[in-house]
Amino acid sequence: MAAPSRLDNVISLAKRRGFVFPCSEIYGGTRSAWDYGPLGVELKENIKRQWWRSMVTSRDDIVGLDSSVILAPQVWEASGHIKAFVDPLVECLSCHKRYREDHLLEEFEERKGRAPEGGLAEIACANCGTRGQFTEPKMFNGLLRTYLGAASDESGLHYLRPETAQGIFVNFENVMRASRQKPPFGIAQVGKSFRNEITPGNFIFRTREFEQMEMEFFVVPGTDEEWHQTWIDTRHAWYTDLGIAADNLRLFEHPQEKLSHYSKRTVDIEYRFGFQGSEWGELEGIANRTDFDLKTHSEHSGKDLSYLDPATNERFIPYVIEPAAGLSRSLMAFLVEAYEEEQVPTAKGGTETRTVLRLDRRLAPVKAAVLPLSKSEELVPTANALATELRQHWNIELDVTQSIGKRYRRQDEVGTPFCITIDFDTKDDQAVTIRDRDTMQQERVALSKVSEYLAPRLLGA
Amino acid sequence: MAAPSRLDNVISLAKRRGFVFPCSEIYGGTRSAWDYGPLGVELKENIKRQWWRSMVTSRDDIVGLDSSVILAPQVWEASGHIKAFVDPLVECLSCHKRYREDHLLEEFEERKGRAPEGGLAEIACANCGTRGQFTEPKMFNGLLRTYLGAASDESGLHYLRPETAQGIFVNFENVMRASRQKPPFGIAQVGKSFRNEITPGNFIFRTREFEQMEMEFFVVPGTDEEWHQTWIDTRHAWYTDLGIAADNLRLFEHPQEKLSHYSKRTVDIEYRFGFQGSEWGELEGIANRTDFDLKTHSEHSGKDLSYLDPATNERFIPYVIEPAAGLSRSLMAFLVEAYEEEQVPTAKGGTETRTVLRLDRRLAPVKAAVLPLSKSEELVPTANALATELRQHWNIELDVTQSIGKRYRRQDEVGTPFCITIDFDTKDDQAVTIRDRDTMQQERVALSKVSEYLAPRLLGA
Repeated sequence: MAAPSRLDNVISLAKRRGFVFPCSEIYGGTRSAWDYGPLGVELKENIKRQWWRSMVTSRDDIVGLDSSVILAPQVWEASGHIKAFVDPLVECLSCHKRYREDHLLEEFEERKGRAPEGGLAEIACANCGTRGQFTEPKMFNGLLRTYLGAASDESGLHYLRPETAQGIFVNFENVMRASRQKPPFGIAQVGKSFRNEITPGNFIFRTREFEQMEMEFFVVPGTDEEWHQTWIDTRHAWYTDLGIAADNLRLFEHPQEKLSHYSKRTVDIEYRFGFQGSEWGELEGIANRTDFDLKTHSEHSGKDLSYLDPATNERFIPYVIEPAAGLSRSLMAFLVEAYEEEQVPTAKGGTETRTVLRLDRRLAPVKAAVLPLSKSEELVPTANALATELRQHWNIELDVTQSIGKRYRRQDEVGTPFCITIDFDTKDDQAVTIRDRDTMQQERVALSKVSEYLAPRLLGA
Repeated sequence: MAAPSRLDNVISLAKRRGFVFPCSEIYGGTRSAWDYGPLGVELKENIKRQWWRSMVTSRDDIVGLDSSVILAPQVWEASGHIKAFVDPLVECLSCHKRYREDHLLEEFEERKGRAPEGGLAEIACANCGTRGQFTEPKMFNGLLRTYLGAASDESGLHYLRPETAQGIFVNFENVMRASRQKPPFGIAQVGKSFRNEITPGNFIFRTREFEQMEMEFFVVPGTDEEWHQTWIDTRHAWYTDLGIAADNLRLFEHPQEKLSHYSKRTVDIEYRFGFQGSEWGELEGIANRTDFDLKTHSEHSGKDLSYLDPATNERFIPYVIEPAAGLSRSLMAFLVEAYEEEQVPTAKGGTETRTVLRLDRRLAPVKAAVLPLSKSEELVPTANALATELRQHWNIELDVTQSIGKRYRRQDEVGTPFCITIDFDTKDDQAVTIRDRDTMQQERVALSKVSEYLAPRLLGA
């Protein structure tokens, strides 16, 4: 058996420490989704908040939206999803495991550096090993259906959205009017989407239920290519600013012949997850959707979604640049990137392995841990009072169990930037020791100055 | 035609100013759901954040979770939802409009102060006026179905969760272990739920897709009644602390014979929305769910969810106290409560009506507006620089169009606590005027001290 990979170690940590649990695990789990535990939900919220800040509240030209999961079914006819949101499904003739044909071909190419000349004939089933024995591809629609109303027949047929974007397009005019924006401007949204994936897998990378962070940026036609490049650069910088090494990111230009039906050009930002087979995975797609969506909704709804520029008196349907990021995928990337095992000296002169999540402080789920050196009555009330004070600003953990060394390791492992120790000198000098996660350096800080010490170091967190 | 009610005015403001839009409006709208516009999404996030702070990050004994919308179908068999999550559906024989029988009876009782002796025979159809002509009630299950996987038959049948609570119960042990908690402790969650409501209506009050803020608090059996009362008091105080007048809240004790199958006692917190007919509506239900859920999941999953207290060596299945709040409902309540029309003097010596949303500052979607008195080159760069500085901390609007009076009114109408005006003296005295939304008093504050001025006034926002 192969040694666990770095990715295996991250997944194991994520499950053990309560970042992510398998959905409905006590019933054997579903392959479709994962649940986010106490630390996972904080990390996820922090990623959302950073995205929202960067996209919405730090800017003048982008506003937010939160539209519904279940839209009018006509939306998906207009958008092309009912017809075109299909994947080629094949099944192994021997073990009946199902695959997406395009994934099989892409994985082969990634692994071998060349396309399989004989197509599927060259490819072995990952489950049973049988080579080249697959059914003919059958087109399979990825929309999840549901039925609204009391009728319980096809008249109530609706779909769960497979992307948040369409909720933005159908609200385009309402939002533009209410927020008094005009192109170039954007509408941003974070929310759940659902796709009937044939092969969910790779931990939280491909699931049937997932969260997206999408922004549709409406621009004057002719300025679209320049804006597209701007958004590719801006989004790339967002990941590196939050701690992803540029070496672990790459841009993937979609070949012309494989572009989605709405796209003029699409560039993916990929991260080096270290999957078996193909080690790279998509974090975010940045598409030039042209005027496809507003045009098709104008035609299907009968509502003119063109814009009349009062300055030039020109009427046009805006082009749309869409940076569409996967929230669950970026959470996974931040975890993988932050994970480190390092050798550190022990008190007895040996060394031991320290596992540390070097998460950016803005993303860390717990900002500081308050640790009374013992459970004694002398220390605990002071620790409680400090935790209460700090909780006005940040997510704080108060941990009183086990040795201080074990507690440091526990906080390192979940990426807590600061550990604050109340010791037996605290009563005399009214000071505490603050330990930095990354350097393990300790500083003595006055009890009354802890907030002040942390504030600039947790700016924007 | 009756004059618009206060509630009508709030709804009209909410649509006009971009708090809430009808879902898929360009396609004629769906009755099932509403979309949250730029201001609505900020207000909603602020409510969530206050709830999360109050429930999770300000406390030691509650942790967060974010579980999936689509759970293993066995969960809903165990919880009783497949059998018991039903409403009595009746149809008017004349116009075929559908109603929930229990709603018809309750509305009658609320209006007349007595139950209808003749049952439905006494009740008129709200749509066509025909009295007492309804079908026999038919039990109708409120779970929304969907189908996962390629099979596209009943083998893939799953449900969209009608409450977030079950996702908490099935994760009970994972969370307890990973967070090293023990009873009494709680698990909190905010997220979407879906119910196939027969009669969606009253704006965002009853929709098929909605957001919940639920917390399950696990306690030692025997301490449940006391904890139940504690949570009723705590939750009531949350609403009043955020600005809801106690007069507009009331507690509704569910009669024993109408309790849900899992409940020992349930108390609702209701708000005086001012609906036609019954003016009160439920904001939150606080239930003593006993050990029903953990017990039934233990039995159905085969996984023992009892807890062994290491101190007493006693094994028990914890009782659960559940404060379950509707996020969309509380958003609506905060809007209704904050709405005020008042007469204010004009510059010319007359009076005019000022519409102001007196939202708590922690909830206000925009914390401050930066308003250069004119579009001149002398003022706009200063306004831009100030807005950029303040955006590091808060959601700020920069508004340069129309007269200053109109801009004040516009900000009052959406509840912005502070308007900051850059005028022609600013260049000389390096100061700005800060106007308070509620008092309309203005203060001159140094440009360099604006952040410092706002910080204590926006504490916790």
